[in-house]
Amino acid sequence: MSEVYATRRSRLRDHFTAAGTAAALVTRPANVRYLAAAAPQGSALLLGKREDLLVCVGQPDDRPAEGRPDENLRLHVLPPNGVGACGAVGAGGEAVVAAAELAVAQAADSLAVEEHHLTVTRHRAIASAAPALRLGDLGGAVEQLRVVKDEEEISCLRIGAEIADQALGELLESILVGRTERHLALELERRLVDHGADGPAFATSVATGPNSGRRGHRPTDRRVEEGDFLTVCLGATYRGYRCEIGRTFVIGTSPADWQVELYDLVFAAQRAGRESLAPGAGYGDVDRAARQVLDSAGYAEALPPLTGHGVGLEIDEDPQLAPAAMGKLDACVPVTVEPGVHLPGRGGVRIDDTLVVRPEADGGPELLTITTKELLAL
Amino acid sequence: MSEVYATRRSRLRDHFTAAGTAAALVTRPANVRYLAAAAPQGSALLLGKREDLLVCVGQPDDRPAEGRPDENLRLHVLPPNGVGACGAVGAGGEAVVAAAELAVAQAADSLAVEEHHLTVTRHRAIASAAPALRLGDLGGAVEQLRVVKDEEEISCLRIGAEIADQALGELLESILVGRTERHLALELERRLVDHGADGPAFATSVATGPNSGRRGHRPTDRRVEEGDFLTVCLGATYRGYRCEIGRTFVIGTSPADWQVELYDLVFAAQRAGRESLAPGAGYGDVDRAARQVLDSAGYAEALPPLTGHGVGLEIDEDPQLAPAAMGKLDACVPVTVEPGVHLPGRGGVRIDDTLVVRPEADGGPELLTITTKELLAL
Repeated sequence: MSEVYATRRSRLRDHFTAAGTAAALVTRPANVRYLAAAAPQGSALLLGKREDLLVCVGQPDDRPAEGRPDENLRLHVLPPNGVGACGAVGAGGEAVVAAAELAVAQAADSLAVEEHHLTVTRHRAIASAAPALRLGDLGGAVEQLRVVKDEEEISCLRIGAEIADQALGELLESILVGRTERHLALELERRLVDHGADGPAFATSVATGPNSGRRGHRPTDRRVEEGDFLTVCLGATYRGYRCEIGRTFVIGTSPADWQVELYDLVFAAQRAGRESLAPGAGYGDVDRAARQVLDSAGYAEALPPLTGHGVGLEIDEDPQLAPAAMGKLDACVPVTVEPGVHLPGRGGVRIDDTLVVRPEADGGPELLTITTKELLAL
Repeated sequence: MSEVYATRRSRLRDHFTAAGTAAALVTRPANVRYLAAAAPQGSALLLGKREDLLVCVGQPDDRPAEGRPDENLRLHVLPPNGVGACGAVGAGGEAVVAAAELAVAQAADSLAVEEHHLTVTRHRAIASAAPALRLGDLGGAVEQLRVVKDEEEISCLRIGAEIADQALGELLESILVGRTERHLALELERRLVDHGADGPAFATSVATGPNSGRRGHRPTDRRVEEGDFLTVCLGATYRGYRCEIGRTFVIGTSPADWQVELYDLVFAAQRAGRESLAPGAGYGDVDRAARQVLDSAGYAEALPPLTGHGVGLEIDEDPQLAPAAMGKLDACVPVTVEPGVHLPGRGGVRIDDTLVVRPEADGGPELLTITTKELLAL
């Protein structure tokens, strides 16, 4: 298992040595975890000239959900620094500065850092602690490595999706009318953990009535009423990997005509997006497939800026499935397809799945979130 | 109410204009909220030469828990950019760059930024979008303004503390033996929301048996057993303000002698810390008051690096009550006092209160978290 991490680090090393840099410092937590199997609070990963080091403040927490650091990687433990409340809070820049000094100790003359993650203050602290180092930018190199997943990673996403499906399925069996968005969201999160999730993949969204169909709606104290649309969007984190499912239901026995029409339309758009997922398909093409169904029905204004996005160690990763996105899908890239329409004052529909891009010879896109997409009346 | 925010911005303006800077850009979310009453996702606050602007990506969410932007502040809304999953995720640097351009449009020649928050990439994007601006460092100026709270802020903390006390009190009335740390933590978080919290102030910590007394312990699947110490640490967020309470209980009818001794010792240390809170007391002195009780009983090695810290819009703010901390307490500074001892393999005790420093003439430190600190056997 730990060969996986050594291989990832070696691919990254090829990248930055080809760019003429001796060492690299990885600080973005999801990137550290991808390369080191764990990202303890406030840690930094040095890919040095002679060896790789995970610099931690205090001994890392070794619970399975946090990941255990790759045992091929040497730990460099700094004493705890007094930062951090009873609840975990970001530590200072100690690990970053110590890692830069360790790079110098390994005779590196240059260091690539993640300028999109490192603060100006920490960048300056490195420059001042290790003035001999020429600092460069690692850019999104680790994020790019993360786009295509291996089967181990996909299997974590698959388990996470099963957990989310279970939590959602149980909710649908309970009585919903009269309960608030906030309570339903909390109950879903409890069920995720009950079924073995490390925790929710993101803040669970429950939207009723006029709120339904709103992207990223944060639950309020509004109660579910007869005749409402109910949009639920949730996901589980399993061994660090985050998936996403979204469904819209109608409350009561018979949906209104406008509800059925809007649902069918969003369903058609979501299906068009799913069916366009294939190795070699452009990011923009997938977005266009879904978007034009809604556009041609006159909802161009009501549409979100993107139709889907990659998922993995973060809930929102590359690629972005958006009109202007450049690039093509590869096999084994997990993405969401999540078009929606929200009509201010009335509500709306979102349907959201997590799928893995697969070649047609392997049966085409693999649907991870299998809860039905029929319009259920609850 | 909104005069409060204008006054805060004016104090900050006095600070940076005295340092010779024409305008300031605030990006750290808690700082934006402090000065603008709300910090919509991905927003940035410009204190310009002619007027102050809150730059947002999309219309801000105006739920009470999120705060509504100060109405004296002009909003500058950028179109949504396609970043951000169904769960909210950090937006790009659009707001930051737009704010810098707006500073130039107001004829500013210099701009102080929060270098401890801004990434190197965003700093560079500002420099390239607005090359005429001389960029400086605002440092922790807003964090320093935030240390002393007004009575409105303290009242939010007081309500949050009441909510946390209620949630904890209800848990103590339920049956605990056989339940896991994770379930107890989830139940506490649900109760916080039931009682009106925006949400938990930090990840609720429930620690049983050998885990008890560990600072920031993350709940596991260990079940509560007879004879355990049980340490619970939780807090509510109310209108953005975060408080903290921690208690240790014993499970079963009669605590063991070592448990009673350890509890009495930590209680004495925590009381010493609380009693040393006064306007003018040094941060290090408060820490020392609590620490020396534990030190002299031979627990120097088992002690955490700090005894307490400020709370407010973040759960861990200035001041830090730690051995080497420099500075003196003022009246109206809310802090935690939270000494603890953890004995590896056996467990331990933590007792944690949130208090507001008050002069003796006003009755001395005001205890916000009033749950009993007697050793309860549950």
